[in-house]
Amino acid sequence: MIIPAQNFSFALQSQDGQTHARHGRVVTRAGAFETPAFMPVGTIGTVKGIVVDRLRDLGVEIVLSNTYHLALRPGAEVVAELGGLHKFMGWNGPILTDSGGFQVFSLAQMGKISEQQATFRSHIDGSLVELSPERAMEIQRLLGSDIAMVLDHVVALPNEQEVIRDAMQRSLRWARRSRNAARDPSQAVFGIVQGGLDEALRLESCAGLVEIGFDGYSIGGLSVGESPDEMYRVLDFTVPALPVDCPRYLMGVGRPQDLLEAIARGVDMFDCVIPTRNGRNAQAFTDSGPVRLRNRKHERDTRPLDENCPCPACQHSVGYLRHLFQANEMLGPILLSAHNVCYYERLLSAARAAIDAGRFHEFSREKLLGWQGQAIAKLD
Amino acid sequence: MIIPAQNFSFALQSQDGQTHARHGRVVTRAGAFETPAFMPVGTIGTVKGIVVDRLRDLGVEIVLSNTYHLALRPGAEVVAELGGLHKFMGWNGPILTDSGGFQVFSLAQMGKISEQQATFRSHIDGSLVELSPERAMEIQRLLGSDIAMVLDHVVALPNEQEVIRDAMQRSLRWARRSRNAARDPSQAVFGIVQGGLDEALRLESCAGLVEIGFDGYSIGGLSVGESPDEMYRVLDFTVPALPVDCPRYLMGVGRPQDLLEAIARGVDMFDCVIPTRNGRNAQAFTDSGPVRLRNRKHERDTRPLDENCPCPACQHSVGYLRHLFQANEMLGPILLSAHNVCYYERLLSAARAAIDAGRFHEFSREKLLGWQGQAIAKLD
Repeated sequence: MIIPAQNFSFALQSQDGQTHARHGRVVTRAGAFETPAFMPVGTIGTVKGIVVDRLRDLGVEIVLSNTYHLALRPGAEVVAELGGLHKFMGWNGPILTDSGGFQVFSLAQMGKISEQQATFRSHIDGSLVELSPERAMEIQRLLGSDIAMVLDHVVALPNEQEVIRDAMQRSLRWARRSRNAARDPSQAVFGIVQGGLDEALRLESCAGLVEIGFDGYSIGGLSVGESPDEMYRVLDFTVPALPVDCPRYLMGVGRPQDLLEAIARGVDMFDCVIPTRNGRNAQAFTDSGPVRLRNRKHERDTRPLDENCPCPACQHSVGYLRHLFQANEMLGPILLSAHNVCYYERLLSAARAAIDAGRFHEFSREKLLGWQGQAIAKLD
Repeated sequence: MIIPAQNFSFALQSQDGQTHARHGRVVTRAGAFETPAFMPVGTIGTVKGIVVDRLRDLGVEIVLSNTYHLALRPGAEVVAELGGLHKFMGWNGPILTDSGGFQVFSLAQMGKISEQQATFRSHIDGSLVELSPERAMEIQRLLGSDIAMVLDHVVALPNEQEVIRDAMQRSLRWARRSRNAARDPSQAVFGIVQGGLDEALRLESCAGLVEIGFDGYSIGGLSVGESPDEMYRVLDFTVPALPVDCPRYLMGVGRPQDLLEAIARGVDMFDCVIPTRNGRNAQAFTDSGPVRLRNRKHERDTRPLDENCPCPACQHSVGYLRHLFQANEMLGPILLSAHNVCYYERLLSAARAAIDAGRFHEFSREKLLGWQGQAIAKLD
């Protein structure tokens, strides 16, 4: 019998009538956050380009970090010696750590998965690393994250049915080992659903995880090559197979429209590098769709990106932001990363309000129209 | 008869008994700043890596920006159209703009100096640019800086006496043309002393500039290849030849010890890229001397760089800062640039207090001992 994490809870605040969207609240040992929640990605112990004391002003309530990256550099024991991940990065709110399964799949070189563990070469220095389900949990205990992920076996899509089934079933066995591993009783643990695009495999994965019992359930193995519509279809049959009274987290997704589509299907949590990565590459998110700041037409634009946005980028003109990118000034990526994270957080805050008001479907439709350029394009 | 700038004044607050150090206050149309003052360098309209709303918290009261760079990109007229330099970069305090003389000397390609103007190729796109004393003033008027510099002719050191003399005398003629150029009556204008390391040439330059009459006097043409001791010697005979009742600005200098040596000789204002440039390269300034953060010995150091420093870097352990640089995270340069600017500002704030207390000489000696590692090295 698995005991749920101490000081961890999920409570529904309201539910939309027309969709499966829901507004909830997760309490962790490091504080609470509202769902649907967007977690900016602090892979290596920093949300790229954003000084940590600014995160709350941008609307951030929970940050994601990464087992694989921190284990390779500086090492989980070093982070522990420096006071744990919260002290290390200077963030006292909730932290969720991914287990490293996705990075073993996407970054590591010459990876080999056995029943016992993943063995691979570090993408930093080529050294041989072994990551078992137990070690992944131990690393996350050392980091001191508030929500840990089980180690999973991720495969590329499309792939042979047999390969996907094997990886899903191994992920289930690893999930059980993770659950049985030594743990801090107040650290919540989420299972990860695998099974590719196949309904039967996904349902088998859900049932297996629910039988083990977790504090929350992640949907993994998506955004790995399939189309958005295929992903939405997987959510259509996967989310209903997960417990209503636990948070559901769609890993590594995605674009603003993906978030709204997933929220409508009952997803509660998200993480994605898009806001910071695109920000570094001069792309700003706005209600009228993405703005490419290097475009010459912005040269003399005296307006801010969004006059209602409280982020530091929107204290400046679009012309100034363009200038920063043209001059290769690091302030360009800094400001636009902050803007985009703020955009995502404001989007999810507005989504929660729309759920409360029972108009999430209408809200989504308005947003999608705006992004598709159906609304009057303000800047682009 | 040249009329001093409106809304511009310099008042001495106190003077040190043992040295020529002085504590003053400059009032500009955009607000006041205390001297000795350090101006962080915002060459292209941004102090590299620092979001502008953080500058005041770091102790910054006045920012430097650059005529040459902004004229080439995005263009002075574009900055003007975007509301002027203050609005452009989001800084409502005083701004001083360098004239571009030093950049024509150090950056431009195939430069040619005639009596009329400097003609050179842009280091960005190779286009042909003409910069006359009048155009340099016009650009600074368009930018809307609060203190403008006259265009000067800078030469490398060492150099032939005749070359240095010619450049100094041309700089004087250009200073007069700058002073006679159309101007905004509330924009202060500083002359620039040239003359290499030669006492007679420097004194001729000072006398010529004082005869024209400026709101303040800059000492240029230093930090261009000579030793620190040679620079101090030039200050020894140059500063006394400048009016007591005007601010004196040593351009482009320097290391913390250079600032204290120059303050002791009566200099009031400084700018230098060292704090931000060295910060980007993992070097932190501390009272025990510079700390190289990439050094392995800092890996598990749980202490901040300086427990009394209010900057965002010092909210973290040295181990974390090292990790950021090892992982090539942009937060490393961001945090260390802020720390080093804060270090310089705190140093000059402490210098002003020491002048008020009549103990600047003792203060300087303590600081120099610490930097030379005579004090107990805390971190290095």
